[in-house]
Amino acid sequence: MARALSYINGNATLPVPCRPNPSRPCALLLPYRPLKVTVSCNRSYWASINSDIEAHLKKAIQAREPPCVFDPMHHLTFAAPRNTAPALCVAACELVGGHRDQALPAASALHLIYAASFTHEHLPLTESSRPKSAIQHVYRPNIELLIGDATLPFGLELLAKSDDPNQNKSDRVLQVMVEITRAAGSQEMIYGQYCEVETCQSDNKESCHSHIGEIERICEKYDGAMHACGAACGAILGGGSEEEIEKMRSYGLYIGKIQGMINRIGSHDKDLNKLVDGLRDLAIKELRGFNEAKAKAISSFF
Amino acid sequence: MARALSYINGNATLPVPCRPNPSRPCALLLPYRPLKVTVSCNRSYWASINSDIEAHLKKAIQAREPPCVFDPMHHLTFAAPRNTAPALCVAACELVGGHRDQALPAASALHLIYAASFTHEHLPLTESSRPKSAIQHVYRPNIELLIGDATLPFGLELLAKSDDPNQNKSDRVLQVMVEITRAAGSQEMIYGQYCEVETCQSDNKESCHSHIGEIERICEKYDGAMHACGAACGAILGGGSEEEIEKMRSYGLYIGKIQGMINRIGSHDKDLNKLVDGLRDLAIKELRGFNEAKAKAISSFF
Repeated sequence: MARALSYINGNATLPVPCRPNPSRPCALLLPYRPLKVTVSCNRSYWASINSDIEAHLKKAIQAREPPCVFDPMHHLTFAAPRNTAPALCVAACELVGGHRDQALPAASALHLIYAASFTHEHLPLTESSRPKSAIQHVYRPNIELLIGDATLPFGLELLAKSDDPNQNKSDRVLQVMVEITRAAGSQEMIYGQYCEVETCQSDNKESCHSHIGEIERICEKYDGAMHACGAACGAILGGGSEEEIEKMRSYGLYIGKIQGMINRIGSHDKDLNKLVDGLRDLAIKELRGFNEAKAKAISSFF
Repeated sequence: MARALSYINGNATLPVPCRPNPSRPCALLLPYRPLKVTVSCNRSYWASINSDIEAHLKKAIQAREPPCVFDPMHHLTFAAPRNTAPALCVAACELVGGHRDQALPAASALHLIYAASFTHEHLPLTESSRPKSAIQHVYRPNIELLIGDATLPFGLELLAKSDDPNQNKSDRVLQVMVEITRAAGSQEMIYGQYCEVETCQSDNKESCHSHIGEIERICEKYDGAMHACGAACGAILGGGSEEEIEKMRSYGLYIGKIQGMINRIGSHDKDLNKLVDGLRDLAIKELRGFNEAKAKAISSFF
């Protein structure tokens, strides 16, 4: 997990770990590269959140039988690079006044959904139109397909089981369930992946690369939707108002788009930098009205 | 859907549509073949349930954008052979005194989970150890992989959205969510599929075929778990008592095992017929104490 956590550990040049694909040949999916970011605030904030999510996941996965299925699930869960949406979920919960524990099951579900997506994205299909990065496959394709299929319901099971009927918050957990299943589904993440597959299907790679608008659309649907969902779910679970939930949803959308675009295009593209600056300004505006210290903590994403 | 519904339409020799795989070369996974069953009761009962589930699914899928994703999802949802677990969910709900509408979202989710499983089971992987039946692939493998990934969360989204917070039954919907995600996950259906993959990996097909115990284990985990889950969920949603829910869970387990084993081995194996007779007796015992007319309706599975 060392690399997965490194982006939240300091005030220096840090890699952004979201969806690195070192050997993707398609110009749209440029190599993973370090991104210069300045962490403006408490350097241990994101590290402590990620540590708590990791501990929650490790406890949940190790407690299960059968090992022949859970061992590969454990491996693939932690082999996937860490996505920033789960941590954002926890930070949003704290921003609206909730306790971290309230968001950990949803954050863990989000990581598991991402891990399932990452695993399936790298499956060797016989007639793949999509470039695959050279990750090491520890298990046979059939097993990786099955484990990916098991990982999403496992995440949602953890979330559903986290509900305590005595607390009378079941409707809130169900609201989060709708948010997460919708984000993971056909109108959001899967639609983003579909667009990516269709774009990479094009023979004209030059054209593929030049279409920043197309990349933006993919990132809005995949990375944007996942981060918007994470932030909104955190706000719901933390007891935020409707306005706070929607502010967090927008904040997450901008953050996710930035993450996705920089990971796909790199941080040296002038057109992209302009776009990112605009998105960053929009994101910061969404933090107005929140507790200042907490807003500073969550803004340290930049 | 004609073939999918035919098994519940009369008192004659009817095909059982659960998981037909006409060209599976592994001896463990024998060709789909018609099974002689006698439907003892109201022939329109199961047809009307399946018709309602189908209508519910069609309405849900057609109402969505984008069509480039939902068209394949619509196709793959209805191209999958109908599994009997969703109908059992509705029948169990009615058995305990609930209204059919209460169980339709969960029944639809179960069908979608089965359709996703069926779609992924037939993906052409580069290094597959598992025999694939010769189904017609309408879409490219990448698209079928993605659509399968989208189908499960879509089913769970339908279920989560079906909750009306004003009815104060959110905890019951969450209970069903736990049941379904658990059944679809690593300890049940996926474990069954894992065992199937591992068994078919064996070079000794003769030995593979002779292991009725191994087939029984696979069927208990895959078909048994799915039917147990369906029946238990129906009872939960219909407002059944703990005892009724557990009776339905056991009933579904026996039914599912019977369905799975007959579909894999055929109905002419003497050893299997003994086993099936025993399971049928156990299933019928679970119906004691319920309303007689309704118990007769649900027992027409045999």
